[in-house]
Amino acid sequence: MSTFTVKAFAAESTTADLKEMNIERRDTTPNDVEIDILYCGVCHSDLHTARNDWGGTMYPAVPGHEIVGRITKVGSDVSKFKIGDLAGVGCIVDSCGHCDSCKQDLEQYCLNGFTGTYNGKDKHLGGHTFGGYSQKVVVDADHVLKVPENLDLAAVAPLLCAGITTWSPLKHWNVGPNSKVAVVGLGGLGHMAIKLAKGLGAEVTLFSRTPGKTEDAKQLGADHVVISTDDTQMDSVKGKFDVIIDTVPYVHDVNPYVTTLNISGTLVLVGYLGGLEPILNTVPMILGRKSVAGSVIGGIAETQEMLDFCGEHNIVSEIEMINMQDINGAYERMLKSDVRYRFVIDMKSL
Amino acid sequence: MSTFTVKAFAAESTTADLKEMNIERRDTTPNDVEIDILYCGVCHSDLHTARNDWGGTMYPAVPGHEIVGRITKVGSDVSKFKIGDLAGVGCIVDSCGHCDSCKQDLEQYCLNGFTGTYNGKDKHLGGHTFGGYSQKVVVDADHVLKVPENLDLAAVAPLLCAGITTWSPLKHWNVGPNSKVAVVGLGGLGHMAIKLAKGLGAEVTLFSRTPGKTEDAKQLGADHVVISTDDTQMDSVKGKFDVIIDTVPYVHDVNPYVTTLNISGTLVLVGYLGGLEPILNTVPMILGRKSVAGSVIGGIAETQEMLDFCGEHNIVSEIEMINMQDINGAYERMLKSDVRYRFVIDMKSL
Repeated sequence: MSTFTVKAFAAESTTADLKEMNIERRDTTPNDVEIDILYCGVCHSDLHTARNDWGGTMYPAVPGHEIVGRITKVGSDVSKFKIGDLAGVGCIVDSCGHCDSCKQDLEQYCLNGFTGTYNGKDKHLGGHTFGGYSQKVVVDADHVLKVPENLDLAAVAPLLCAGITTWSPLKHWNVGPNSKVAVVGLGGLGHMAIKLAKGLGAEVTLFSRTPGKTEDAKQLGADHVVISTDDTQMDSVKGKFDVIIDTVPYVHDVNPYVTTLNISGTLVLVGYLGGLEPILNTVPMILGRKSVAGSVIGGIAETQEMLDFCGEHNIVSEIEMINMQDINGAYERMLKSDVRYRFVIDMKSL
Repeated sequence: MSTFTVKAFAAESTTADLKEMNIERRDTTPNDVEIDILYCGVCHSDLHTARNDWGGTMYPAVPGHEIVGRITKVGSDVSKFKIGDLAGVGCIVDSCGHCDSCKQDLEQYCLNGFTGTYNGKDKHLGGHTFGGYSQKVVVDADHVLKVPENLDLAAVAPLLCAGITTWSPLKHWNVGPNSKVAVVGLGGLGHMAIKLAKGLGAEVTLFSRTPGKTEDAKQLGADHVVISTDDTQMDSVKGKFDVIIDTVPYVHDVNPYVTTLNISGTLVLVGYLGGLEPILNTVPMILGRKSVAGSVIGGIAETQEMLDFCGEHNIVSEIEMINMQDINGAYERMLKSDVRYRFVIDMKSL
């Protein structure tokens, strides 16, 4: 298969800083589009993959799955896009298309395993996929999103992962104008959960461990902030929430949040992969028909729905723009939660 | 308030056997009906309450919340029943009627606390309520169920607790003809879960730790039995079930069952109140949008719906009839799981 060379930023090992290198992209096939990448958001998964925190990283690793750009080539069978169109690519660049999940537009749960935008198995070139920290990307058009023209494009990029990761559970658990939603954690995911839940018409509460985030949360649209270390404040919201989006990425006690769920309410974990410690108490779950659930990103159709919704409601991420060369310092700041609320790489710096 | 005396079987202390004693019932008020109790099922909660296993038992304790009988008196404001009608009483004899839960026919989640059929706060006479191990009971008519005439009345009794406890989650999580349902544990609850899920048209699998229950499960309607200690069998049902009704009443590892849930599936705990150990792993939950939930009994309208459904589908419990005087021995057998599948007391023995 014929290819072409583009510049990218990659980690060459677990401990190496990311640095510029050349990678190969496939030439556009009949079903593909080629995208000139304008902006790429920086997700915690990028960092975890670059450093092999979850195991399984293939090197060189080119992270980036919050991609916004413009179409520069269109395959002969593609009718959805034309050259010059805006385009978005999230976490998924391919899926089997025929399993029960794919048939229901749930490519994120593809039973044969979706192809990740990076560190996935490259079906075309062999080896593994390279993400958005690069000049261009070539993607199957069915896995490319249309991006509303009216939004700040750099601030759209994080919608492709942080946005859809919170949108999907909000929609799946039927959040709307009569819902009371709480968000645990105010980072990249949490700030999008607030904006999207608010956009859907819900009454939104942020759970925060410290009072320092109250003003920010309210500016983002939160109606209330509850300091989770304050027992009186926690008691005041007992039994209140229909849906809680828990974005905390490390092990933490979810029991205090479960007690704030309304009858038949659901707490959805979107950030923490691991064992639930301290142990989950089933008593409030059984006596209140409460659920603890998980959710990961979202399907392609749902991601398009979210982008269209954001276009209509003028919703974008809060970002801090960086140059490609700043990525290693940005990772260090992310580890200290020192970003409000998402780094986005200006790809023309590459 | 005027009262009358009836015979009952009661525990007088944590360690005492149940024995015959007299208790007072209120005279029928305008909203009440008086019921001559024909049969009363024996639930594990009866035993736990009699022995104060959960704390909070008030003595003398008269258990019994699976009551079937005939109406012998009707209050002046009651139009739903007439003398001679069959009647059922489950776990709930009163609720506030005006909270969000009650307004949605979810009396089991009454935010002001429903009145339990036994060991509840008696709003009429003071003290605590006495259950169905007695000759008669007087209950607010809105909390009394109509019982189909075509069923074996003794075998109807367990529907009032074991039946509704499994029916409610099956309905809430939308089990129907296209559903794949699994049941964990084959006791009083489990055998009703199989019958009701099968009645709703689902494909039903029993998880059992030992092969000994296979034939019984299939006679009850199970399509498949999976031996949960056999890794090959467990692997064969990975990702299969839409809903799992977990009836196990003691601490157990739910993680192997979570992996057998389909995408977006839910495991509902109905038997175990306590901490989930070993700890719950969120990875399959997040990567498959799976939920772990709880559910307790059901509301009055839903219990009526279940009884009507059982009448139409000829569904009753599998029972072993005992005399009232056999109750202490029956409790001992229940502790050894030596009952297929529910004891029912023939109240004319009292």
